[in-house]
Amino acid sequence: MNQHRNVLDVVDSLPDEQRKVLYRELYGPEVESIELDTELISRLEEKEIELKAYKMQCKLEELRDPRVVRIAAIQNKFASSPSAPFAEQWQIMSQRMAELIDTAAAAGAHIVCLQECWTTAFVMATREKIWNAMAVPAAYGPAADFISAKAKEHRMVILSPILERDEAHADTIHNATAIFNAAGQFVGKTRKNHIPRVGDFNEANYYTEATDGHPVFEVLCSNGVVARIGVNICFGRHHPLNWLSYSLNGAEVIFNPSATTDGLSEPLWSIEARNAAIANSVYTVAINRVGTETFPREFTSGDMKPAHKDFGHFYGSSYVTAPNGQRTPGLSRAEDGVLVTEVDLNLQRQTRDAWMFNVTMRGELYRDMLQKYCEAEFVPQRVVDPALKR
Amino acid sequence: MNQHRNVLDVVDSLPDEQRKVLYRELYGPEVESIELDTELISRLEEKEIELKAYKMQCKLEELRDPRVVRIAAIQNKFASSPSAPFAEQWQIMSQRMAELIDTAAAAGAHIVCLQECWTTAFVMATREKIWNAMAVPAAYGPAADFISAKAKEHRMVILSPILERDEAHADTIHNATAIFNAAGQFVGKTRKNHIPRVGDFNEANYYTEATDGHPVFEVLCSNGVVARIGVNICFGRHHPLNWLSYSLNGAEVIFNPSATTDGLSEPLWSIEARNAAIANSVYTVAINRVGTETFPREFTSGDMKPAHKDFGHFYGSSYVTAPNGQRTPGLSRAEDGVLVTEVDLNLQRQTRDAWMFNVTMRGELYRDMLQKYCEAEFVPQRVVDPALKR
Repeated sequence: MNQHRNVLDVVDSLPDEQRKVLYRELYGPEVESIELDTELISRLEEKEIELKAYKMQCKLEELRDPRVVRIAAIQNKFASSPSAPFAEQWQIMSQRMAELIDTAAAAGAHIVCLQECWTTAFVMATREKIWNAMAVPAAYGPAADFISAKAKEHRMVILSPILERDEAHADTIHNATAIFNAAGQFVGKTRKNHIPRVGDFNEANYYTEATDGHPVFEVLCSNGVVARIGVNICFGRHHPLNWLSYSLNGAEVIFNPSATTDGLSEPLWSIEARNAAIANSVYTVAINRVGTETFPREFTSGDMKPAHKDFGHFYGSSYVTAPNGQRTPGLSRAEDGVLVTEVDLNLQRQTRDAWMFNVTMRGELYRDMLQKYCEAEFVPQRVVDPALKR
Repeated sequence: MNQHRNVLDVVDSLPDEQRKVLYRELYGPEVESIELDTELISRLEEKEIELKAYKMQCKLEELRDPRVVRIAAIQNKFASSPSAPFAEQWQIMSQRMAELIDTAAAAGAHIVCLQECWTTAFVMATREKIWNAMAVPAAYGPAADFISAKAKEHRMVILSPILERDEAHADTIHNATAIFNAAGQFVGKTRKNHIPRVGDFNEANYYTEATDGHPVFEVLCSNGVVARIGVNICFGRHHPLNWLSYSLNGAEVIFNPSATTDGLSEPLWSIEARNAAIANSVYTVAINRVGTETFPREFTSGDMKPAHKDFGHFYGSSYVTAPNGQRTPGLSRAEDGVLVTEVDLNLQRQTRDAWMFNVTMRGELYRDMLQKYCEAEFVPQRVVDPALKR
């Protein structure tokens, strides 16, 4: 058996009765597959691209038209080698990304999000500042030009997570996502709110926490639907308040471009983005890169183990969850892939009207709680067992 | 196959290779079973009580002794009939609860939590006010006397979720949990913060949202360990800020006594309490009642379907999650059961020191966000696609 077999591969291979039990507890109602052009599929096999496409269920309404869009996630290995010259790394990576974006377009995607820092290997493990040379501006420069052209070519909104160089602000580095509209125009950018300090994720050595809040982008899809989207970058998925804030600003879809490895987060992966979809009545799109990246020089991981040149396997497994908790199967654990999901954005309000997590949230209670917690003299609310009192 | 088979029953019956894939993504490291006295087990079979016991992994520390306690969850059918005289319902239910509490004690539990409103059927579906007659005071009266005696008998902290009658405050009704210490003394009570208005959960017709905040109880266990516990009652599990607030007040274990049915929440059940454990670095204990309760008179569910006398199957499946995301298998979907889990409370700080979700949470950012959201003139933070501007 392939060590990179996914849970759903296993589940789907089981006898019907067992399968039913697993779906009932783990996945909710099964999502429908979208039939794909067989010629496209065989072309993609040659290119080693997995393409999966699903359709989420949603009710028709009497007073609103459906607002159906296809959202896509791209996950991939770093196509070049971190030991190659920097210009070559960019060239090879962008060539591969063109194939993946073309695949999303061929499957009818209106909005596609790439993985975190897609233009580079996940270099921050090394703590070497030399990699900053590969950081790029969000609104102009090579990555912006490339994405803008692809967006225009396919009339597709593209979310492009990059290692950003902010030239207007003293050349600072950020972990950001640039958004381009379906005409190829730059819409805006948004940055990573929570920066990890765990394992090899030494990102705090490169950039600081975003100060631009939780912007939600209203984008026009090529079929005329306006979608409201947010981007919770990587480590932000561990923070429920981050998801919540995008939702309070009106997001209907929250993308979570990530780069996370199997030793660290795999048992949490299927939980966090799915919980966020449920708690906030939004679609969430969890995207993780794949493969193992080997760097030219060794580094240590602060885990008392010897120096080494890679930091484990990025396990892919990108998936989409709907506001009502139903989710798609994941992409592969190890291969490049594109996940296309047809969703009706109306499901957000339908779910809110049914479950009422919006009505019952008690914002004032938690505003006051956080107000107290943030004070230096915060005293936790405790009740002490009489057996402990003297 | 039994329709009430659990996911873990299925997973554990699979060949090793498939099993491994499912554990890797779904459950994290397998938890260890605690061997139980075979005589006890066969005695419990006669009484139709399922007992499961597990041990969570935790590292030894150089500077702190382990703080190991056994926490337990009890799930059960309503032992009497909702059509029986009220005094008889109480008598039969408390007799059964005595057997279940004795079982937790026999398995060495230091702290046990019963299911939501354990003294009654889940009567709020009916909207009939007659059931208020069965509500009981938290600190005195029949339920308090019964629980106090059991706590003292077994030197065990008991959390007793009840339909509460607050005689000191104009006879108001609440959904509350009373906490008794290992000497049988009343420690305090805490109430339900989020009240559902979904399906048959007509609780808003009986009581309002709690105003007592998020108290955390410091309780002395019979082995000398002091544990800090919170109680997030039922619907509060859908609200990440509710879990967070107990955690900010210092909870190491958060119990979630619930009553929820299969048509409504089953695909969310394995996600929400587990996500809360991960996000807040706490142990969470998700407890759900079992069985179908048939009421004497019919009621409607606001779902455009005909009137009926029950509101579906409570699916049990109680489970415990550790701060690092590892979880126990669940109890049965349909049978009375006791789940005992041995935990080292030190795992909370170990996980926080490793993952640093506490350091990276950015409380001030979210205090300000909620401050803005709670203002009547709140304007969501939006960036508009230039294609939408005129």
